[in-house]
Amino acid sequence: MLPSILFSVVDDVRRRAPLVHCLANLVTTNMTANVLLAAGASPAMVVAREEVAEFVTLANALSVNLGTLDAAQAEAIQVAVEAGRAAGVPWVLDPVAVGALTFRTDFARKLIAAQPAVIRGNASEIIGLAGGPASGRGVDSTASTDDARGAARALALDLHAVVAVTGAIDYITDGKRSIELANGDEVMPRVTGTGCALSALVAAFIGAGGYEGNLWIPAVAAVALAGVAGELAARETAGPGSFTPAWLDRLATLDAGTFASTLHYRECR
Amino acid sequence: MLPSILFSVVDDVRRRAPLVHCLANLVTTNMTANVLLAAGASPAMVVAREEVAEFVTLANALSVNLGTLDAAQAEAIQVAVEAGRAAGVPWVLDPVAVGALTFRTDFARKLIAAQPAVIRGNASEIIGLAGGPASGRGVDSTASTDDARGAARALALDLHAVVAVTGAIDYITDGKRSIELANGDEVMPRVTGTGCALSALVAAFIGAGGYEGNLWIPAVAAVALAGVAGELAARETAGPGSFTPAWLDRLATLDAGTFASTLHYRECR
Amino acid sequence: MLPSILFSVVDDVRRRAPLVHCLANLVTTNMTANVLLAAGASPAMVVAREEVAEFVTLANALSVNLGTLDAAQAEAIQVAVEAGRAAGVPWVLDPVAVGALTFRTDFARKLIAAQPAVIRGNASEIIGLAGGPASGRGVDSTASTDDARGAARALALDLHAVVAVTGAIDYITDGKRSIELANGDEVMPRVTGTGCALSALVAAFIGAGGYEGNLWIPAVAAVALAGVAGELAARETAGPGSFTPAWLDRLATLDAGTFASTLHYRECR
Repeated sequence: MLPSILFSVVDDVRRRAPLVHCLANLVTTNMTANVLLAAGASPAMVVAREEVAEFVTLANALSVNLGTLDAAQAEAIQVAVEAGRAAGVPWVLDPVAVGALTFRTDFARKLIAAQPAVIRGNASEIIGLAGGPASGRGVDSTASTDDARGAARALALDLHAVVAVTGAIDYITDGKRSIELANGDEVMPRVTGTGCALSALVAAFIGAGGYEGNLWIPAVAAVALAGVAGELAARETAGPGSFTPAWLDRLATLDAGTFASTLHYRECR
Repeated sequence: MLPSILFSVVDDVRRRAPLVHCLANLVTTNMTANVLLAAGASPAMVVAREEVAEFVTLANALSVNLGTLDAAQAEAIQVAVEAGRAAGVPWVLDPVAVGALTFRTDFARKLIAAQPAVIRGNASEIIGLAGGPASGRGVDSTASTDDARGAARALALDLHAVVAVTGAIDYITDGKRSIELANGDEVMPRVTGTGCALSALVAAFIGAGGYEGNLWIPAVAAVALAGVAGELAARETAGPGSFTPAWLDRLATLDAGTFASTLHYRECR
Repeated sequence: MLPSILFSVVDDVRRRAPLVHCLANLVTTNMTANVLLAAGASPAMVVAREEVAEFVTLANALSVNLGTLDAAQAEAIQVAVEAGRAAGVPWVLDPVAVGALTFRTDFARKLIAAQPAVIRGNASEIIGLAGGPASGRGVDSTASTDDARGAARALALDLHAVVAVTGAIDYITDGKRSIELANGDEVMPRVTGTGCALSALVAAFIGAGGYEGNLWIPAVAAVALAGVAGELAARETAGPGSFTPAWLDRLATLDAGTFASTLHYRECR
């Protein structure tokens, strides 16, 4: 039952091609655009303070990534988030390396007052965003998904948001309903941008519409698609280089039956 | 006859390795560099206001892409275009999302006073640049190539430039001589940067020299190479991920015979 | 004997996952991150003046690339290099297009007063950095590795650094001990970022630790790994597009025996 609901969102994205405004980072912006295109969404990386407010109101969702934050981008992000919020455009936050670096941690903690619809990060980032002790090692998590469950639920309830902690195990919660996904492959953290692109994919999935009252469904669907496609791609490839093309192919071509038979999930109480 | 003339330009680029100064966007700069290298050209993405004037005079052509325009880049673009013009370096404009966003539309309409040699965009962008009604959806066209014929011819005659409208059908005109190309594949718009890289490829082709009086020939050759290589690459791949490596391989290795037998074109009156 | 010492550094990187702070360029930052990840290192591209000093002290090495230098990045680089130096973090300089452009040449010549541990560039760049006559053509070398031997040795002795000149033949020297490597493939300069990523790989290798008194060993190991993996990848691929995934796969999976049997080197007196 759940797999077919989730895959119906994959289909919605393919059919509706939601326009996703990405304020991305310099390292993974290309990968992010390609993941969105493969999934059937339409990415656009408009960056200038002069343009973001005008553009975000045309978009179906906004994706904000702090990976290479600087002062100019921080300003553009604030303008975009505010304009998007005024226009009812939902936004997703990827708090890259929050908890490990002061400037972005302070920025992110203020930014979430503007109520992201979804937050997606690794365990260290979610703990760091929730105000936990500094952790993380650059962009890598030093904590496990299990360690971040409490922080994720607290953030979700506090912000009325969905929080997705991704890693070897993914945990997605809106504070009331929670799920664990166990797909993907250990090669994925050895490819830059698999996490950043997933955050933008979540934005595409909530931007496709139809689940305004329950964004947990499209958020879970995006994480599930990325993981299932990744697991299948890893099986047929020899390393992190050949993984990427295969992952994009799978994101574009995965069918409902293969999705359902590959998905490993467990709803949590 | 035309296919062999066009392929002779492909050969010129491979032999002469024109140096192309690219003022690119943050999303597709890597793809752009790889496409130029695969085709035998030499790309360089010098970006600083302090360096662009010095560098552009060393280059054989300049490629300007507005995809992630901001105020600092707008300034660098103006400096580079003026310095290149003074030194007789031809330049190509890719008016990404012009018509959809005010800041870049105003900028592009002023910039073309400095007479680009070639303009390459999708139908919405060419219509937008020519002063037509706002259209487009982010970086995607909402118009067909057919819709943009009049705008393309008007721009070409007005600016003494070649205008290339690319899409499922490509239309290239200098206002007097026009052609339609029907290669490529529907996977190409699902890979970020295929259009941006094509604009830079046009710059390489006009920069290779030998057609100063008739840039329509090298502009057509660049669009034809991209489309033929793309069509062949798509035939042997399973999706947008595996397409990219295959496209680059084909750009590097395509031979005259395969080019001629695959090219679909129709000269227009 | 030497091959097994070199491969032991490859193993150290895989085991220790050194954290490399990269101040990269806009074109090749994605490739750089993927090469580091494939080799087992942990890249992070923190760019803001507000963050670089805090972050570099967490890193095992710093990699500085001047490919798309502008005034803001120049400031961040100076802050990072100084903070890293105070914290004992070794740094690698990639002097992209130094010698060909005034702004970056002036900047690089001042920057090396802060004593890079390793400098990696092509022949024109090493000659340009050492104060030789302007040369180079954009980012491409117009000189051969042989031409740059004297400049490399002089720089190495002057700065107490290791200098690696890479090209068809690679030459790595600390002024006293020198080696030539003859792996790689002619496809590699047709893929953007193979050189930039190699500089960051050198940073990872010196950051893995254990050779503080003799950084020539890890610098040679990094260049050797890139060349051997590249040569093997080129043998099994059809062009510059398919090369990249195969190279990343080889960087991740190469074993000691294949490394030793493929490595071509000659120690120089």
